[in-house]
Amino acid sequence: MKNRKIRVIFRPEKKEILTSIKSSLKEVIKRAGIKINFPCGGKGICGKCKVKVKGKLSPLTSAEKKHLQPVEKDVRLACQAVVEGNIEVEVYPLSLISFPKILTNRINREIKIKPLIKKTYLSLPPPSLKDQIADLSRLEKYLKERGIRYPFADLDLVKKLPRVMREADFKLTAVLKKQRLLTVEKGDTRGKNFGVAFDVGTTTVVGTLIDLDTGEELATRALLNPQASFGEDVVSRIDFLQSHLEGLKILQKRIIGAINRIIQMLSRVGEVKRENIYLATFVGNTVMQHLLLGVNPTNLALYPYVPVLKRSMELKASDLGIRINPQGSLYFFPNIAAFVGGDTVAVILATSLFDDNSQKVRLAIDIGTNGEIVLAKGKKLVCASTAAGPAFEGARISQGMRAERGAIEKVKLEEGKVEIGVIGGGRARGICGSGLIDASSQLLKEEIIDSSGWLKPSSKAKEKWSSRITKKNNHNGFLLVEREKAQDRIPIVLTQKDIRELQLAKGAICSGIKILLTRLEVEKGEVDEVLLAGAFGSYINPESAHLIGLIPNFPKAKVRSVGNAASLGAIMALVSEEDCKQAEKISEGVDYVELASFPEFPDILTQAMRFGKQD
Amino acid sequence: MKNRKIRVIFRPEKKEILTSIKSSLKEVIKRAGIKINFPCGGKGICGKCKVKVKGKLSPLTSAEKKHLQPVEKDVRLACQAVVEGNIEVEVYPLSLISFPKILTNRINREIKIKPLIKKTYLSLPPPSLKDQIADLSRLEKYLKERGIRYPFADLDLVKKLPRVMREADFKLTAVLKKQRLLTVEKGDTRGKNFGVAFDVGTTTVVGTLIDLDTGEELATRALLNPQASFGEDVVSRIDFLQSHLEGLKILQKRIIGAINRIIQMLSRVGEVKRENIYLATFVGNTVMQHLLLGVNPTNLALYPYVPVLKRSMELKASDLGIRINPQGSLYFFPNIAAFVGGDTVAVILATSLFDDNSQKVRLAIDIGTNGEIVLAKGKKLVCASTAAGPAFEGARISQGMRAERGAIEKVKLEEGKVEIGVIGGGRARGICGSGLIDASSQLLKEEIIDSSGWLKPSSKAKEKWSSRITKKNNHNGFLLVEREKAQDRIPIVLTQKDIRELQLAKGAICSGIKILLTRLEVEKGEVDEVLLAGAFGSYINPESAHLIGLIPNFPKAKVRSVGNAASLGAIMALVSEEDCKQAEKISEGVDYVELASFPEFPDILTQAMRFGKQD
Repeated sequence: MKNRKIRVIFRPEKKEILTSIKSSLKEVIKRAGIKINFPCGGKGICGKCKVKVKGKLSPLTSAEKKHLQPVEKDVRLACQAVVEGNIEVEVYPLSLISFPKILTNRINREIKIKPLIKKTYLSLPPPSLKDQIADLSRLEKYLKERGIRYPFADLDLVKKLPRVMREADFKLTAVLKKQRLLTVEKGDTRGKNFGVAFDVGTTTVVGTLIDLDTGEELATRALLNPQASFGEDVVSRIDFLQSHLEGLKILQKRIIGAINRIIQMLSRVGEVKRENIYLATFVGNTVMQHLLLGVNPTNLALYPYVPVLKRSMELKASDLGIRINPQGSLYFFPNIAAFVGGDTVAVILATSLFDDNSQKVRLAIDIGTNGEIVLAKGKKLVCASTAAGPAFEGARISQGMRAERGAIEKVKLEEGKVEIGVIGGGRARGICGSGLIDASSQLLKEEIIDSSGWLKPSSKAKEKWSSRITKKNNHNGFLLVEREKAQDRIPIVLTQKDIRELQLAKGAICSGIKILLTRLEVEKGEVDEVLLAGAFGSYINPESAHLIGLIPNFPKAKVRSVGNAASLGAIMALVSEEDCKQAEKISEGVDYVELASFPEFPDILTQAMRFGKQD
Repeated sequence: MKNRKIRVIFRPEKKEILTSIKSSLKEVIKRAGIKINFPCGGKGICGKCKVKVKGKLSPLTSAEKKHLQPVEKDVRLACQAVVEGNIEVEVYPLSLISFPKILTNRINREIKIKPLIKKTYLSLPPPSLKDQIADLSRLEKYLKERGIRYPFADLDLVKKLPRVMREADFKLTAVLKKQRLLTVEKGDTRGKNFGVAFDVGTTTVVGTLIDLDTGEELATRALLNPQASFGEDVVSRIDFLQSHLEGLKILQKRIIGAINRIIQMLSRVGEVKRENIYLATFVGNTVMQHLLLGVNPTNLALYPYVPVLKRSMELKASDLGIRINPQGSLYFFPNIAAFVGGDTVAVILATSLFDDNSQKVRLAIDIGTNGEIVLAKGKKLVCASTAAGPAFEGARISQGMRAERGAIEKVKLEEGKVEIGVIGGGRARGICGSGLIDASSQLLKEEIIDSSGWLKPSSKAKEKWSSRITKKNNHNGFLLVEREKAQDRIPIVLTQKDIRELQLAKGAICSGIKILLTRLEVEKGEVDEVLLAGAFGSYINPESAHLIGLIPNFPKAKVRSVGNAASLGAIMALVSEEDCKQAEKISEGVDYVELASFPEFPDILTQAMRFGKQD
């Protein structure tokens, strides 16, 4: 009976698979091809992989007892449960991976188009007994007449050269990247010259297809980073690769797979052949850039947090399996430090923070899964990193989720009523970062929480909001959406723990900003501009942010959302040789501040975690 | 009965294999792992793949009827016969591939040792919270202190860097090739710095292991080029790759296999680890260099004879599968023209023909499977190529063979007796190039052949050598070794056809020289030195060569054998950066002369084919 096959049926898909007894439910779900989120990497920490199961499973683990309310009948955590008999499984919508909203950049700036890839059409004389020079020499000779001297050609190009030259009757187009002869094509292919810029986030991967000759954006597509199933944040992905023999390879394969799927979508939508895409640029945090290259980032997560690679890398597309033209070129942005990566370099590039000749004081905050802060005072730039992001992206928040359909993004408490704004309209199924900030600021205003973050309503508040103040897992909570109004018939409650998580996150960012100000000896009154980049920065309600004290109180600063500035930086490097060089200068010229090594950090953090306007 | 298995037994090995009826005997022999020569590529042209077979085979083909004497009972050509029943096979020793004699260079010259590969030992401070720079940046920082700025490191090196650095406790040796950081090694590995120089001939592959720091030759090993089983000369190999889908891949795999076997032997004999070999240089004729790189040389054999590649190539060892250190570097010599390759560049380099500041007139002749001629007059150099080689290496000569054990290398006719010198002593089994020249010059002296090459003895000669003058295949012949004194009990006879082949070969070389002299407007009396390179040039009897008119009569020239000058050139490029640059200059600076396009060529050739001293 030991080898008895167990039948697992998935609802509502009606998918059915067979497995052996004692299989992990997580593995069974993966095998069934159902894409489900394991934000903590499947360790029972986050409680996000809820599924409804009928049938025989292992008893509840202590992790499940902590995360599951007794009312959630038949609900289990997929990462904890073990199959012990035929079962029927229904995956909660909250656990499913869905397509992210694409954030475009909101910076209107002029980019000088000077593409790195150039095409030259050549009509060569065919060889004869009087003109027996080698095929490659023939090409070089006529390129030299166009001012292109000693181009470098690799072996793969040399191999195909004699065939292409003869099939093209010696009329061909040379594709050059500066001194490098990338490829040759039959006939005149000028005008078909494309590139893709990638912003590889911990959570989302965004690709933009660009006409290299005109700089025109032809299409943008995004996918969730499929590495997320091995851990929502970079640290849990590093944990995964450390505990799996092929972990690094698996993570690299996943992200390259997503990039190739995006290229395929862009190629179809933009009506561009993949072989006419010759250049791809990549920006990401330092860990993402390491994983993408297949370089082990383990030491980034271990004291004293050292990356392998700071400088930029250039590779041939076929060497990494990126499916643009195999002879095409890949450019990986340089990093600044272990937790300030190429994406921050790209934000600095896109916002002209580095080459600003005015003596203005400017602050840029990019909150993705990680939060990076850059402060510029004229030519001096400092940066820091905080692990603030996860809370804002829904991780560690009991009913948190990303800014996707069904997420509460706006909250208003007025006259005893809770008004919510849900992304995509419809019923709410969780709360995202901007909703969390909104809700907290409202609870603060209504004295339901105090400035220390205690969910301990004032007597007035108790009276006014008695029906909303509730308990969850023995902790106080505030009911945002009643059971009957919620999508999955699970009431949406903001808990004391959620508020603590938010305090940690906003405290980290706020104290990071304060330390950078001290470092450059800048007073709050001197700050001219605050740029909010990334998804979170774009959807946030500035008033709520100020109210809870996410950023210090800057009397004269203009606060601007700049959208996906990292993507814009990647695009700039794609179409402009100068911007590519500028990225290198930024990587070398920005000083990294390790917040934890700052002696006053604990005091500043404690102060910054308090709610209310920060002075 | 169609699928009946046929039993094939090999004697004297007693090997036995099963095959299906109608198998080609050639394929059966290959499958049995018996290495046998098919100089013409298995087309029945050369008659060299003789085997003795008992059992049922297909009837004799017309090719076999031409090549096999009726007295050779049970003898067949392996490339022609088809198996039709159980058989017993004995392969003739003449057909077997054996290990070649290694020719060392005979040039005593000083080589400036300035190796391209340098090792630097570094004891780096380990990272700390105050010193979090990236692993690669740490390495670069301390290399910069040693004057090495911005070294280029490839992804494979970056990938292994964090592990090696930590395992080595940050004490490591950087291996650099100019600006390129090849690899890093744990601890102090200075002093272990080796390279290999390869002369990839059509027939023989020679490898030399060199200590890069001292220039010392540690070991030399050679193997026959295994491509030979697909054709003895370059044209038959091109034929093969054109008629087989995977032909190019097969030829490349074979030659790389031989190179790797030589590296293994050198590593064992020289007591050097393969990972401490960081550089390999390769010289070969243009076709060999193309095949080695996997570049299709077909157009070299088709009008108007154009190579793909003239310039040098640098590759990473692992990219081609050459088993030195995988991060090591490979350097392929530049070529001059379709039939004057990197080996000639290397001969010119080794003999200082190019940078000669004297106004001397010097001639170098390198006869391998192809014959290349270079004429230098001060700074002016011209070169030409002749397909003369095969005859001198035994191909197209009825009982010809390479200069191996059992080959007649010396012949003297005196007082009615034939005295022969056999390589390795013992009984003769064939005749090699130097033996052929010796024999012809003796037959000429004794008036057995006339100056037009007719084997039509004078009446005096008829009387004196009557017992030796014989018939073979209805043609006149001269018996060199009687049946009972020959190794395989096959009499060794020099035929009219053999003499015609020799005339063609020596005529080609002699007329090539004459045309080059005309081209540089040099009189015979002006030639100061003649350098004979390659195997053939080294073993030749200069007097016999003059007597038959292999080279024109140069009144004042010194004739010198320089041995394997091509290998020496490859070694020089290995240990000296300057010599490597010099090779590039030679490739660009030597003019190629296409003999066939010279209007007087037919007349000159006709004249040069005559026997006797050439004026």
